[in-house]
Amino acid sequence: MSASVYTYLGPEGTFTEAALRSLPEAATRELTPMVSVPTTLDAVRSGAAAAALVPIENSVEGGVTITLDELATGEPLMIYREVLLPIAFALLVRPGTQLSDVKTVTGHPVSQPQVRKWLAANLPDAVWESAASNGDGARLVQEGRYDAAFAGEFAAATYGLTPLVSGIHDAQNAATRFVLVGRPARPAARTGADKTTVAIWLGDDHPGALLELLQEFAARGVNLVRIESRPTGQGIGRYFFSVDLEGHITDRRVASALMGLKRICPNVRFLGSYPRAGFEPSDMSPLRYGTEDKDFAAADEWLARCQDGRA
Amino acid sequence: MSASVYTYLGPEGTFTEAALRSLPEAATRELTPMVSVPTTLDAVRSGAAAAALVPIENSVEGGVTITLDELATGEPLMIYREVLLPIAFALLVRPGTQLSDVKTVTGHPVSQPQVRKWLAANLPDAVWESAASNGDGARLVQEGRYDAAFAGEFAAATYGLTPLVSGIHDAQNAATRFVLVGRPARPAARTGADKTTVAIWLGDDHPGALLELLQEFAARGVNLVRIESRPTGQGIGRYFFSVDLEGHITDRRVASALMGLKRICPNVRFLGSYPRAGFEPSDMSPLRYGTEDKDFAAADEWLARCQDGRA
Amino acid sequence: MSASVYTYLGPEGTFTEAALRSLPEAATRELTPMVSVPTTLDAVRSGAAAAALVPIENSVEGGVTITLDELATGEPLMIYREVLLPIAFALLVRPGTQLSDVKTVTGHPVSQPQVRKWLAANLPDAVWESAASNGDGARLVQEGRYDAAFAGEFAAATYGLTPLVSGIHDAQNAATRFVLVGRPARPAARTGADKTTVAIWLGDDHPGALLELLQEFAARGVNLVRIESRPTGQGIGRYFFSVDLEGHITDRRVASALMGLKRICPNVRFLGSYPRAGFEPSDMSPLRYGTEDKDFAAADEWLARCQDGRA
Amino acid sequence: MSASVYTYLGPEGTFTEAALRSLPEAATRELTPMVSVPTTLDAVRSGAAAAALVPIENSVEGGVTITLDELATGEPLMIYREVLLPIAFALLVRPGTQLSDVKTVTGHPVSQPQVRKWLAANLPDAVWESAASNGDGARLVQEGRYDAAFAGEFAAATYGLTPLVSGIHDAQNAATRFVLVGRPARPAARTGADKTTVAIWLGDDHPGALLELLQEFAARGVNLVRIESRPTGQGIGRYFFSVDLEGHITDRRVASALMGLKRICPNVRFLGSYPRAGFEPSDMSPLRYGTEDKDFAAADEWLARCQDGRA
Repeated sequence: MSASVYTYLGPEGTFTEAALRSLPEAATRELTPMVSVPTTLDAVRSGAAAAALVPIENSVEGGVTITLDELATGEPLMIYREVLLPIAFALLVRPGTQLSDVKTVTGHPVSQPQVRKWLAANLPDAVWESAASNGDGARLVQEGRYDAAFAGEFAAATYGLTPLVSGIHDAQNAATRFVLVGRPARPAARTGADKTTVAIWLGDDHPGALLELLQEFAARGVNLVRIESRPTGQGIGRYFFSVDLEGHITDRRVASALMGLKRICPNVRFLGSYPRAGFEPSDMSPLRYGTEDKDFAAADEWLARCQDGRA
Repeated sequence: MSASVYTYLGPEGTFTEAALRSLPEAATRELTPMVSVPTTLDAVRSGAAAAALVPIENSVEGGVTITLDELATGEPLMIYREVLLPIAFALLVRPGTQLSDVKTVTGHPVSQPQVRKWLAANLPDAVWESAASNGDGARLVQEGRYDAAFAGEFAAATYGLTPLVSGIHDAQNAATRFVLVGRPARPAARTGADKTTVAIWLGDDHPGALLELLQEFAARGVNLVRIESRPTGQGIGRYFFSVDLEGHITDRRVASALMGLKRICPNVRFLGSYPRAGFEPSDMSPLRYGTEDKDFAAADEWLARCQDGRA
Repeated sequence: MSASVYTYLGPEGTFTEAALRSLPEAATRELTPMVSVPTTLDAVRSGAAAAALVPIENSVEGGVTITLDELATGEPLMIYREVLLPIAFALLVRPGTQLSDVKTVTGHPVSQPQVRKWLAANLPDAVWESAASNGDGARLVQEGRYDAAFAGEFAAATYGLTPLVSGIHDAQNAATRFVLVGRPARPAARTGADKTTVAIWLGDDHPGALLELLQEFAARGVNLVRIESRPTGQGIGRYFFSVDLEGHITDRRVASALMGLKRICPNVRFLGSYPRAGFEPSDMSPLRYGTEDKDFAAADEWLARCQDGRA
Repeated sequence: MSASVYTYLGPEGTFTEAALRSLPEAATRELTPMVSVPTTLDAVRSGAAAAALVPIENSVEGGVTITLDELATGEPLMIYREVLLPIAFALLVRPGTQLSDVKTVTGHPVSQPQVRKWLAANLPDAVWESAASNGDGARLVQEGRYDAAFAGEFAAATYGLTPLVSGIHDAQNAATRFVLVGRPARPAARTGADKTTVAIWLGDDHPGALLELLQEFAARGVNLVRIESRPTGQGIGRYFFSVDLEGHITDRRVASALMGLKRICPNVRFLGSYPRAGFEPSDMSPLRYGTEDKDFAAADEWLARCQDGRA
């Protein structure tokens, strides 16, 4: 059964489901909503599902911390795909509700900062209460507990609601990044426009530890596209870093930087190399002199000559 | 009126209120709970309150992103004090409820990861739904909507509930850091065990920008105690950094590092220098050679001699 | 008397004299040749001379080590001018000597590597013996001790010799840099195309000490144009560094870097800021973002605002 | 014939000969003095000699530039051994000469700074003239051209002279380092207390080029024991760097740093890994965390697991 099941962070009618349905293979899989990121991922760990789709980064809120933390700990998982979804909210109401009727609004806590300005301008007196998800917020509106919910317009039909306003998003370019996660296997093939995700623990608390970490990347001309500190849960001031970098683990410069980190950090977890969504090889940052695969190969060959006395 | 009012992130009965009441001056102030971090802080900005207490960092969840973001943008505010509160939850129920009766639990979304393991071990089948705050969760239990709420034990009396289990915290050393915020004025006096908070925007997206930022600190031997990337809301991949560092803005090494950042970054916002909670001068990291105030003074004096030809 | 005397590394007829005579003020000074770099400089230290001209860098041999060492130690001196002289040798012989008659050649040891290839091609069997200076070599040819001397063509007349071959120089762009040295006083005025010379001692022998030194410059975008390690004379492996950098000590970025070095190094000796010979402001490397004087001034002003609570 | 011939920088009676005779194998070789460093080394290049001994570093004068430059260019050579010789001079005179008779003294130009203070104190009026070598200076005293020569005491017998004063050396710990050079072959075996010599050319003249070079070493915890800039002969301001580092080319951290340099620099010449004279494994600087061979091996193995999906 498991090979045909893909779990996703539910409930139905969320942006996550919309993102999952944008993948071609979703058409032939059984898509199962789960109640939380941990349960979504644990279904993959246990073998109950072949893959799971979860949000990982939001252009307004930043990293989805529960996803970053769940991937960094527990049984190893790997990212094979990413999906980038532009985010715009609709204000969903029961049919017949007018804007002036809206006294209470709900939505996922992550959605709130993305509609805060819109709320202040259009519903300054409405009281916000958080729901467990945008889909759940819509359900609570359906049940009459709140007057309106912020959710994707696609959720309206699922819950028998009407989009009173559409295209709401405080920030330009609001988008959410989702990842398709499976059990560890050979990484997705290199495409030339790839991204690699790792979680890195710093060994000791000395001032320069983060600097040293970054220098391992800089020394090989590896560009970071996201870096976030996450507490390890072992007291204020203890962190790990969740990092996305440009390139694939089979790129020599990436492999060399990761090995450098592995040597100086107590723990490095490789979380996958995969095609970067909405990104072409021509969008890649120019490589620094001496960091192409051929430069590494030439240096290997030169070293062997030196060691053999053929220099 | 305003000088006598301190706002805090409400509702009543949360850890924030407990933290605020730990400050001696709280006894002589009118303490007003607010519904959100933005409204708590805006009361200070508008002059309706003299100061506001909000959570800024949690040892499990990391930075309280809404606080970091609200301090970094909008009308300038400054931090004058910090309060460190050990966090342990009680499971609050209506009198008479047994553990086996608990089918639904609630609490603030930030609390959930801090009790997840306890829940899995003790209430594996209970359904979690998030509340707007721990205090609000307790209220919802009082109203009968949920069977139990995670909150501080001190909240039980406020809502007529009973602590069924106390001292719940998945992680050792769980603590939350709160800050007392006011309008910009002269920073708190230097004590020798101080912390400085800044928000720093990176100019362009070049790979080494974060490295350069860290080198401004490293060059002066300034230790970072927290660094977090936060999206600017202008698209995936655009960040600012929220940073806590050891030392006071009147320490020469700190002043020099901040001026270095100011020169190379498009925006640096100084958010205050204040005594580090639970920290003595003897806890400070040893200063690197050449970074004491006297070293800066000697270098100033030497430069003047060189420029005057008295070298 | 002293104000009218300029000493130079003699004897007469060397490139150093030619360099000194290229300075306009030389026409009104009494030019006194000295037997060595130490005696040339000591005449200034003692007050017997107002200034001294000595070679400091040769494009083939590198730094003139005796000059670098003499400036770095002893009573302080300062550089006020530099002179850049293209170097080409003439082969000076007694009148009547043919190339085929030349069995022995002489010249300063520093000249030898600059004519080595020419010798190998044109006088492969001639025996080289070093002289104390090129001028001294010419004198020894005059006295009949050697058959030919390498020296500047201008030396022929002084010693009654004939230039048998002219324009000899193995390397393209051969040039020597000379400096005019005086007692410490206010540095030469800033011109916008300046150079600053310093001697820097590293504190301890830890691997990263030189790296830290360079980072003080890099952090302020200060470009180095020459760096040489020199033994301190206290055993193999103990060095100081002789450094030329772009800019003037009154440039804020230069002042800031020098103060940074002064703080972390046990000894820094400022040896002068002076116009860079053959260099226009338009030849300067572009300044890094944030390192102009106005950027430093803006950062000063911002810091004062922060410290006063006017941020 | 060649296998039995070792050339050395002559003439007979110099410190170089003394250093060569300290090697056990010298007893079974034909030791041939040569007139210059280039001719000494070219005898090896041409096959006329199996090996050559030349001075490479002096604790007072620094690198012997002609040796550094000759090794860095031309047909490749490799260093297989080093010899460290404490340096003390004798003042050699013709039998019967008193100190008060000495009006002229000679010696190699490199010797002069090592006896300058002694001369100033004991023979303040004596005139120095340089000789092509210390041995040559002794010969010129024998011939009556000068009154005294500074040379090793061992040279007295060769030239029929008497050591008037012994143990002269201005600096404490004066020593010269010599290297035994041959044609490229497999490097000397790793002993655990090794040194590696390389010549490195910087690609372009950008300010951070030397910083990047040093970071390749720092990133792998490789300690430098000597670094000298040498002009390339292509105009003022163009350098290569002559570097000695701790460790052997078969040490993973050294191999990795050299490959890193090879990738980013236009030219790197490996000049040998060989036992460090007068140095035990216990004298080595402690290795930085994560830079032992086992750490590199573990990182290789980890990378392979990641690339295969066995992470």
